Amino acid sequence: MSTLRAIGEFEAIRRLIGARERGARVRVGPGDDAAILVPRAGRELAVTTDAFVEDRHWRAGWITPAALGARLAAANLSDLAAMAARPAWALLSYGLRPSHRIAALLALQRGAAGTLAASGAAIVGGNLTAVRGAEWVSLTLIGEVRRGRAWARAGARAGDALAVTGHPGRAGAAVRLARRRGMARVPAPLRRAWRAPRPRIAFAAALADARAVHAAIDLSDGLAGDLARLCAASGIGAELDAAACVRAAALGAAPATLRMDPLALALGASDDYELLLAIAPARLAAARAVAARQRVPLTVIGRVSGPREGLVVRAPDGRRRALASLAAGFDHFGGPAR
Amino acid sequence: MSTLRAIGEFEAIRRLIGARERGARVRVGPGDDAAILVPRAGRELAVTTDAFVEDRHWRAGWITPAALGARLAAANLSDLAAMAARPAWALLSYGLRPSHRIAALLALQRGAAGTLAASGAAIVGGNLTAVRGAEWVSLTLIGEVRRGRAWARAGARAGDALAVTGHPGRAGAAVRLARRRGMARVPAPLRRAWRAPRPRIAFAAALADARAVHAAIDLSDGLAGDLARLCAASGIGAELDAAACVRAAALGAAPATLRMDPLALALGASDDYELLLAIAPARLAAARAVAARQRVPLTVIGRVSGPREGLVVRAPDGRRRALASLAAGFDHFGGPAR
Repeated sequence: MSTLRAIGEFEAIRRLIGARERGARVRVGPGDDAAILVPRAGRELAVTTDAFVEDRHWRAGWITPAALGARLAAANLSDLAAMAARPAWALLSYGLRPSHRIAALLALQRGAAGTLAASGAAIVGGNLTAVRGAEWVSLTLIGEVRRGRAWARAGARAGDALAVTGHPGRAGAAVRLARRRGMARVPAPLRRAWRAPRPRIAFAAALADARAVHAAIDLSDGLAGDLARLCAASGIGAELDAAACVRAAALGAAPATLRMDPLALALGASDDYELLLAIAPARLAAARAVAARQRVPLTVIGRVSGPREGLVVRAPDGRRRALASLAAGFDHFGGPAR
Repeated sequence: MSTLRAIGEFEAIRRLIGARERGARVRVGPGDDAAILVPRAGRELAVTTDAFVEDRHWRAGWITPAALGARLAAANLSDLAAMAARPAWALLSYGLRPSHRIAALLALQRGAAGTLAASGAAIVGGNLTAVRGAEWVSLTLIGEVRRGRAWARAGARAGDALAVTGHPGRAGAAVRLARRRGMARVPAPLRRAWRAPRPRIAFAAALADARAVHAAIDLSDGLAGDLARLCAASGIGAELDAAACVRAAALGAAPATLRMDPLALALGASDDYELLLAIAPARLAAARAVAARQRVPLTVIGRVSGPREGLVVRAPDGRRRALASLAAGFDHFGGPAR
């Protein structure tokens, strides 16, 4: 089993580059000092970066190298989906121990490349450096969006419907269960939500064409925290429907196993890489039609209110509570290691 | 002294964003899921990424946080200079211990931002995550270059002059001296070469306008190794002039102090972030004029030869030796920690 120490940095880079598909609109690279890329006319660029650190974003045994690469790609793709952008090019940077096996590194790249390719993007560059201690992988993703058509966190208006894709809360529940009993024993739907999130690139593009969305944010910290950020950027308040949030999360037996309130799990720390959307009421039916066509679960979980109304959750009995009393987003420096 | 643990991830990110100058042609961000950027018409993109890892690329006490940020920016800027591209936007990603002081983090960003701004680029996004063990900083830089005008490693032709900017070898000599006696006691010109390399962005742009360069590479591993890469990409050989290489390095007393052959220091592992250029003989005078105007040291150290002639070094007495017998580039996984 050949390691990075055995084959050396330059041979490892040669193999990484050799294993890559050449991307579209790549004039130079990979393998030069920089990649030279050909943007489309009339487009703006959307760029994002996200990194995973060992023992914080994953633990050995929780995920294969290929799935880890795919998950990191999905995390970045989700940021571009939240801007309604189309991904094009990625750079993948590694900090790995000399004992890292080259086969595992190539599998990681293959996982990332496969998930990127499914959304139209290719790896065009990167970096490889040795570390002692925890390993890390960092991806930077560049996409394109029609001039002036990017979504942002700002733009939500009072009366908009708040909707989520997929099942936000499942990834966080999976991590909580995995800490107790190992990832292998986590129920499959939750394990899949954590391990293999589905980037909503095509769905976002179709919604953007339908002019349905006023504001959007990627759900990477937890519904409560990310909603608070969207509301702050938009200068508005929001009222969540507790029952709808729990229904969207679809957590099965996890709350009972964890002895946790299902609503706290649905709102709390969870990196689902799903979308939270503020949808114009008049376009909600169109948005639902797009979701049905693409088989993307889309659940309305509340509505946007005025800035003075704050962030509240309405219980089934009609009582309202402040969102902040129920959940907090994950904090890397204060929170528990994942 | 406030730390990341004390203020938390989101407050740290808020302060990082608050301290940034807004870049040119930035429609959205930083602070959204992705930055939305407005490229110039008729340009291609040049993108690169480079990371520094604690105890490998720097040691505590060798460099201030601000200088470390500036050096990381310079490393990436040098990659774009080697493509004759103009930098525009950067993303800065950190893996830091919870005990990291927020003031030190802001100083690091300020150092990077200052060096980027001097070359026309701004920080438009990034990531912050907690680590245990060694800290790391990763920068991705996006620039622009006129369509079809980017330099590459390929393109050098037999007869081209090989020239270097600055004093390649000094950074490596500084690191070797610092390991023995601490960076503070390294002679100032060498210490500066390691700590504060000068990105050659404006010089490269002027040379590109003068149509003087057939091929280029950033000197980040050492002259011998990077020359070998340029030659492999161009499918040519090269003959270096040993005396010119030593003269260009301008190492002062370092070889004597280190008891090392000056030529081995000039050719060996060294991350100078200078340029190695293959210059058309007919344009050499024009290139020299640009260098003089911009006060960039430019030294011809050899010439490009045919592919069969290999890589050789000619001694003052006229004898030729294979380059491989004299030096090898730095390998992160096999080489010593810097």
